[in-house]
Amino acid sequence: MNTARKAEKNRNHKPVAVVVADDFEDSELLVPLERLEGAGFSYELVGVESGKTLTGKKGQQVVTDKAIDEVASGDYRALLIPGGYSPDQLRTNEKMVSFVRDFCDADKPVAAICHGPQLLIEAEAVKGKNMTSWLSVKTDLVNAGALWVDKAVVEDGSLITSRKPDDLEAFCSVLIAQLESVN
Amino acid sequence: MNTARKAEKNRNHKPVAVVVADDFEDSELLVPLERLEGAGFSYELVGVESGKTLTGKKGQQVVTDKAIDEVASGDYRALLIPGGYSPDQLRTNEKMVSFVRDFCDADKPVAAICHGPQLLIEAEAVKGKNMTSWLSVKTDLVNAGALWVDKAVVEDGSLITSRKPDDLEAFCSVLIAQLESVN
Repeated sequence: MNTARKAEKNRNHKPVAVVVADDFEDSELLVPLERLEGAGFSYELVGVESGKTLTGKKGQQVVTDKAIDEVASGDYRALLIPGGYSPDQLRTNEKMVSFVRDFCDADKPVAAICHGPQLLIEAEAVKGKNMTSWLSVKTDLVNAGALWVDKAVVEDGSLITSRKPDDLEAFCSVLIAQLESVN
Repeated sequence: MNTARKAEKNRNHKPVAVVVADDFEDSELLVPLERLEGAGFSYELVGVESGKTLTGKKGQQVVTDKAIDEVASGDYRALLIPGGYSPDQLRTNEKMVSFVRDFCDADKPVAAICHGPQLLIEAEAVKGKNMTSWLSVKTDLVNAGALWVDKAVVEDGSLITSRKPDDLEAFCSVLIAQLESVN
């Protein structure tokens, strides 16, 4: 199937949920969004509030589409968790944690980069999983029972993790491949 | 003993080491420094590099006195770990983690607030300890074996922990009481 037809087909799918708060790592939010759009997948930015302007660590701004109160994992095809200090903030919100846990329980694609796996620790979704992360999160992942690996991208079933902005190319490719494989 | 005489006596002691990186929580660094000075205790800001200007989350700036390469816990009376995102950065530096571990092993006063306990997780110094922290660090502390308590300040032997800027008054008072008790 050529790229245009593939993108057309992808447009019929539920959007990808992207959970985000202030101090996100700018490229780890914006590059995957661009790649998803390019492949024809839609997405929604889910925050603690909807219509809220959020500012990344390097100053990029985005506006949330939905509040955590008004969404359910069933409305989405997959979950994307960008890094930076956004996951540290989101993990203190019980509804956000429960939303994340629902994607893991349903074996939908969950892609977390850098500090993103902090939210997966909070959702108790890392035990026995092969994963990677930003180095500062390694010990917390290991203490939570994950099997930490130093690789650009690690796939364990529907769970996709990466370490840092330099890994974005590999991270996005694996996410898009998983999204297309469930077409 | 009156305050002036007490402060004079405290001046003869080794300084308190304060470990810090960019994105520290401004008040959690500056308020304790002010309280230490007021009580006559000296301190040194220890960073990854010396003479480096660091900027807090709210824009306050400080300059480090020493690099981690040139210090040893034996040069100091106690350790202070302010919160914010500074501990997340410091925990990836092996020398910093080993410096922190040495204070814990020597039972010197160690005071950590907010995200500060992240460095204590990395130093493997929290197992079986009564502690508190910023809420986002709770699960990581529990997974590392700490006994997490929701209180303004928790003292377990020479280990002092607090949750957030609102706890600073209690946090500083307990730290200064411990410093004076070993006079």
